[in-house]
Amino acid sequence: MKNIKQYIDTAMRRENGDFILKGGNIIDVFTGGIYKADIVVNNGIICGVGNYSGVNEIDVSGKYVMPGFVDAHVHIESSMTSPAEYAKAVMPHGVTTVIADPHEIANVCGKDGLDYMRQASSDIPLDVKIMLPSCVPATPFEHSGAAITADETQNMASDFHGIAEMMNYPGIISCEPETLGKLCGDIIDGHAPLLSGHELDAYVSAGIKTDHECSLENEMTEKIRKGMYILLREGTLSLDIAKLIKGVTAHTLRRCAFCSDDRFVGDIINNGSIDHCIRKAVSLGLDAIDAIIMATLNACEIYGIKNRGAIAPSYAADIVIADDLSLTSILYVYKDGILVCRNGKALFDCELVNTTNVTNTVHLPQIDTDFFKETLPDVITAIELIPRSIITKKVTVKKYARLSKVCVIERHNQLGTKGLAYVTNYNITDGAIASSIGHDSHNIIVIGDNDSDMALAVNTLGKTGGIAVCSNGNVLSFMPLVIAGLMSSKSAEEVTKEHNSLYEAAAKLNINNEIDPFLSLAFLPLPVIPEIRITDSGLFDVTKFEFI
Amino acid sequence: MKNIKQYIDTAMRRENGDFILKGGNIIDVFTGGIYKADIVVNNGIICGVGNYSGVNEIDVSGKYVMPGFVDAHVHIESSMTSPAEYAKAVMPHGVTTVIADPHEIANVCGKDGLDYMRQASSDIPLDVKIMLPSCVPATPFEHSGAAITADETQNMASDFHGIAEMMNYPGIISCEPETLGKLCGDIIDGHAPLLSGHELDAYVSAGIKTDHECSLENEMTEKIRKGMYILLREGTLSLDIAKLIKGVTAHTLRRCAFCSDDRFVGDIINNGSIDHCIRKAVSLGLDAIDAIIMATLNACEIYGIKNRGAIAPSYAADIVIADDLSLTSILYVYKDGILVCRNGKALFDCELVNTTNVTNTVHLPQIDTDFFKETLPDVITAIELIPRSIITKKVTVKKYARLSKVCVIERHNQLGTKGLAYVTNYNITDGAIASSIGHDSHNIIVIGDNDSDMALAVNTLGKTGGIAVCSNGNVLSFMPLVIAGLMSSKSAEEVTKEHNSLYEAAAKLNINNEIDPFLSLAFLPLPVIPEIRITDSGLFDVTKFEFI
Repeated sequence: MKNIKQYIDTAMRRENGDFILKGGNIIDVFTGGIYKADIVVNNGIICGVGNYSGVNEIDVSGKYVMPGFVDAHVHIESSMTSPAEYAKAVMPHGVTTVIADPHEIANVCGKDGLDYMRQASSDIPLDVKIMLPSCVPATPFEHSGAAITADETQNMASDFHGIAEMMNYPGIISCEPETLGKLCGDIIDGHAPLLSGHELDAYVSAGIKTDHECSLENEMTEKIRKGMYILLREGTLSLDIAKLIKGVTAHTLRRCAFCSDDRFVGDIINNGSIDHCIRKAVSLGLDAIDAIIMATLNACEIYGIKNRGAIAPSYAADIVIADDLSLTSILYVYKDGILVCRNGKALFDCELVNTTNVTNTVHLPQIDTDFFKETLPDVITAIELIPRSIITKKVTVKKYARLSKVCVIERHNQLGTKGLAYVTNYNITDGAIASSIGHDSHNIIVIGDNDSDMALAVNTLGKTGGIAVCSNGNVLSFMPLVIAGLMSSKSAEEVTKEHNSLYEAAAKLNINNEIDPFLSLAFLPLPVIPEIRITDSGLFDVTKFEFI
Repeated sequence: MKNIKQYIDTAMRRENGDFILKGGNIIDVFTGGIYKADIVVNNGIICGVGNYSGVNEIDVSGKYVMPGFVDAHVHIESSMTSPAEYAKAVMPHGVTTVIADPHEIANVCGKDGLDYMRQASSDIPLDVKIMLPSCVPATPFEHSGAAITADETQNMASDFHGIAEMMNYPGIISCEPETLGKLCGDIIDGHAPLLSGHELDAYVSAGIKTDHECSLENEMTEKIRKGMYILLREGTLSLDIAKLIKGVTAHTLRRCAFCSDDRFVGDIINNGSIDHCIRKAVSLGLDAIDAIIMATLNACEIYGIKNRGAIAPSYAADIVIADDLSLTSILYVYKDGILVCRNGKALFDCELVNTTNVTNTVHLPQIDTDFFKETLPDVITAIELIPRSIITKKVTVKKYARLSKVCVIERHNQLGTKGLAYVTNYNITDGAIASSIGHDSHNIIVIGDNDSDMALAVNTLGKTGGIAVCSNGNVLSFMPLVIAGLMSSKSAEEVTKEHNSLYEAAAKLNINNEIDPFLSLAFLPLPVIPEIRITDSGLFDVTKFEFI
């Protein structure tokens, strides 16, 4: 009540606000229009939008003033930076709130991973609403570092913003008790690519309300009709906005938001985040204000975030100020009334968070060359990589074909499991690449054309984890990812630099240049994406849902 | 979890639902379209919308199938019937949920009134979301039967759906502690006719989110811009839809819903409720599906009612089935999957609720003729009634003008206060009308041209309260309102009949036929509506906000 009095007094001009944004063009997410007005902010809250003057006037005349953007679904781990560094990267792009699913670190470190993400997100300006991962382990066809049971989910749910993407739609549809047992609370994210008809009805009947896996306009319309919200995704690898933009109509607009899902920090720095989604949608014909409505009000409504997502009295002062509606130059970003970014630069620093419980997560003995030795049969079932896609093809090849050897090695609990297989279309020559990023269990994956570079690459990762590129007995490049083998502890700029150096090193290994050398690797162990995958438990036929 | 399994099994056709609505035209509030599909319902929940067949098929082919309607703001007391009888009147019109503000009975009976409304609403098919009245007493310029303090409001708030209309906007804007102290929770209804600019900013800064008092399109746009939801009202007296319909655009649609506020049960039976709002809006040019979206999804969103307001899996089976989109013939109404109305008739009966604590609420001694005796000065400040409006005009007249004498008598706590004044333009001849309905404190109001009929009319009300029409020493008509002097305990049909007989009796008294004899009386004591009012504390100048 004390604060309410302060807000009312500020609106009535009986009290000065902290500052006044003077004369800007307000983006009105409620009427879909633009109008000129001053904004008075006090104690982090917008108290008035109209005709205000007084102390601390900031001239924003001619500029466009809009609410802070919301990323409706993101795995911060995929940025390869810590939450603090992630915040420094996204906030200059106008993102003030993210709905984060710490699914990756949970699969490595379990509850320690969740604790780390909460701690690391608690004292940063970015508003990180953390969801409780629903699929740890992601599948029974691989060994992850941890498990979160239905009982644990029920016990922990109230500490989280909601239940994160329920990827196990077969488990829902078939009413697996352990899967249904994880459904609790009002906010349950979905993940249901191409689900339709009775199966979609069943999935939605379980209370699951969002989907970020839509890739067809028809699919989108059916899901909206069934009551789902659609999060149009533009990650580093998955680019769905162009496929779905025609599904955004005057009526369905309110059922849509944007998300990045998985987006590397370098991509964020260079191309943006939700601001990029807005630009992309507008370039495809969506009205600019409608795109902003999706990025702000809609995402807040979907996730029950009250009093954010609009420029209006009683709303939090999460404000983005840009030169124009194309958002090419974001001048100021305010979070809860505090200027956190200016001219594309974050103005804040964050204290380091204790990472003890989420470091040294790679538990492997020294690997020698013999580890990968195998006598090839004459005819081999291999994995064919497809350019610019994470889908793979199951092919049968002869042993003299041009093959890359791939191995996934359990790294969490010293189980000693490994899966060995062969990949066509990757074409690595005179070298190997090893990584501790391998969705979703994040075992060690290594690919190469010779066993000794493969061993060197894996050994280079050490206890820390990371990504190593080796050739002819030399380490060409190594990027340590000390946090769970997924995220660097370094700055976003350093991570980008190291990441670039990885690509430069990989470029020397003659890899098919239509295939991303690292992202293709990162998704090779994911046994829910067609058509054939390799996990630490062996080669997996996704179509038949069985090991080969 | 047990139920979720049942819903999933039903969607997957592994289990039969309770029934299937076969082949209807589904009104899709999400895409704004219509499509043909079957609906399977189990245990009150829609489990699937698509291609379903099986046991208990109900053929609705060619019919229009839509979600149940929501009245976003209503004082059930104004129907003059109990909640059960009100439900029997509104549900055949497709209304399945109402947001009810028991403001009237609270001003008479305090917490006993709230308890009664909750009990009387708990076992009826209509979903009554009861808000906690914020303005008891409504103003300090009259004596009501009870008071609810800020402390009591804070203590009781969690038992209610939200805080009901905060009419005391001067108290909010001036930061009266007792007024601000009543603001709690996420859902706080507003009431702010013509509020604008800094005052509106201040009011909204207090967290107040709805307004049903809008009467101008500009006013509506400003309020939406400031983040308010607009409830377009169509009561018995206040008809606002025509004034506001142009303010409903593709963008503002989601910020709008319908409400009836005050609507007499006879009006509901004859002309409808929210179905009437839909018809009215459509007749004024709004798209029929948009009107239905306002009446369903939007109202549910505004009031945080999850899983109602749409025809989709996981939504409650609140379903209206009509012959056409003009809703002239509503065939079936389902509430939580139970058929509650067929062809305009309610199929349910309700148990009687104990009314002991809300009856015999009129505490007055026997009134004799001398009670109204007054020597008139030569020049009198009088109340001029204005046809078809509740606004009054302050006029100065000579004592020989054609005047009706009006008296408001405190009836709750035997305080002995009364206010006596004179009305022009009412013109009652040879009689008197007394009523225990007098907004918002509901003291006894009596109007007449002779003191003996006035005394007879008041005495006729007895301890019960009600409305009496007397002439030349005879009671022409008397409608008892045993519940708080506001609502009848009789059936909606009987109430309508009695109400008609009141009008027939009043027609004999030569009253100006441009003035509603009863509604004009009911609002005469309301000291927040311009320009001059009479309360039990005396004649009140609303413009100057002081007694005359």
